[in-house]
Amino acid sequence: MKIAEVSIQTTHRTELQPINNLLTELISKKGWQDGVVTIFVPHTTAGITINENADPDVARDMTRFLDIFVPNSPDFRHSEGNSDAHIKASLIGSSVQVILRSGRLWLGTWQGIYFCEFDGPRSRNLRVAFQGEV
Amino acid sequence: MKIAEVSIQTTHRTELQPINNLLTELISKKGWQDGVVTIFVPHTTAGITINENADPDVARDMTRFLDIFVPNSPDFRHSEGNSDAHIKASLIGSSVQVILRSGRLWLGTWQGIYFCEFDGPRSRNLRVAFQGEV
Amino acid sequence: MKIAEVSIQTTHRTELQPINNLLTELISKKGWQDGVVTIFVPHTTAGITINENADPDVARDMTRFLDIFVPNSPDFRHSEGNSDAHIKASLIGSSVQVILRSGRLWLGTWQGIYFCEFDGPRSRNLRVAFQGEV
Repeated sequence: MKIAEVSIQTTHRTELQPINNLLTELISKKGWQDGVVTIFVPHTTAGITINENADPDVARDMTRFLDIFVPNSPDFRHSEGNSDAHIKASLIGSSVQVILRSGRLWLGTWQGIYFCEFDGPRSRNLRVAFQGEV
Repeated sequence: MKIAEVSIQTTHRTELQPINNLLTELISKKGWQDGVVTIFVPHTTAGITINENADPDVARDMTRFLDIFVPNSPDFRHSEGNSDAHIKASLIGSSVQVILRSGRLWLGTWQGIYFCEFDGPRSRNLRVAFQGEV
Repeated sequence: MKIAEVSIQTTHRTELQPINNLLTELISKKGWQDGVVTIFVPHTTAGITINENADPDVARDMTRFLDIFVPNSPDFRHSEGNSDAHIKASLIGSSVQVILRSGRLWLGTWQGIYFCEFDGPRSRNLRVAFQGEV
């Protein structure tokens, strides 16, 4: 197994930041070829998802939906007041797995990988594990 | 790592299609034995989940819930008008990992794997990666 | 690949039970060192997630949100009357992947792994697969 870490800076409280280019550079630099890449978010108020990379309105509609659907309820007890961000993180998930073929992310035509910030802006990290052939 | 692709045809806009048999045939044909199978959906308006395989009403209740819970809001901006399908895809997720033992999917008694169509009917694909012993 | 099973007893209908210690003991006993651990829930009314391990109110707020957000609707048809639990299971997901470094779960500072019971109390199992170096 090979591992790596990359840093991200988010700029809004809720934000879907495309990270395909970041990952493509990392994979190329490391020389990873064929295998499965696990991209893991080591935070509890952020997540990661795969969705459309063409029209930025898709990411915008998703953040809008999540903000309406998971409001910050007065019923929540967590003293930091960001329970909505923790809940969004678990609904979206903390890792994705992508197949790598000949050094390229084997994504569908319209797929992009997004880092999902739910309590930003913050400095964040991604942890990446590659299992396969270099 | 071993990889494979399989095709699926969906028949409704929202649909949970059981794919255990499809995967069982693939694994048997490939001779995969012990390892982890990653089943990846290369689409942005579809997902994949594991849930009850006995009573079809479970899948029906889930699609009903998602259709009510994630309506197509007039507030959404994505011009294709299927933002609800993109959001459902990220809530459900684009891949599952299942352990393989002696060539069989090591699922719980009541578990089945479902391809989740959210903007059908369409022709779809699944990408499967196997890491382990053949 | 190495595999293992562990048992859990839940005590409420909806409950997020921390399982870091359980997994840490298992990994230490097995001598697993560097790789990726897949933790799989073989049940259809339970899931697994990663979230804050410091303030127990985060888990409490999440179960409260899920119980309000996914109510048991009279519109559901599944005869066992626990469709809400099946839906919650698919929203949260049936497995997580965690990177292992030098025998330790490579989690963020505030991250804990939680078994998510949605139709307890019950006796449950976890299936764990390790791919990497022992």
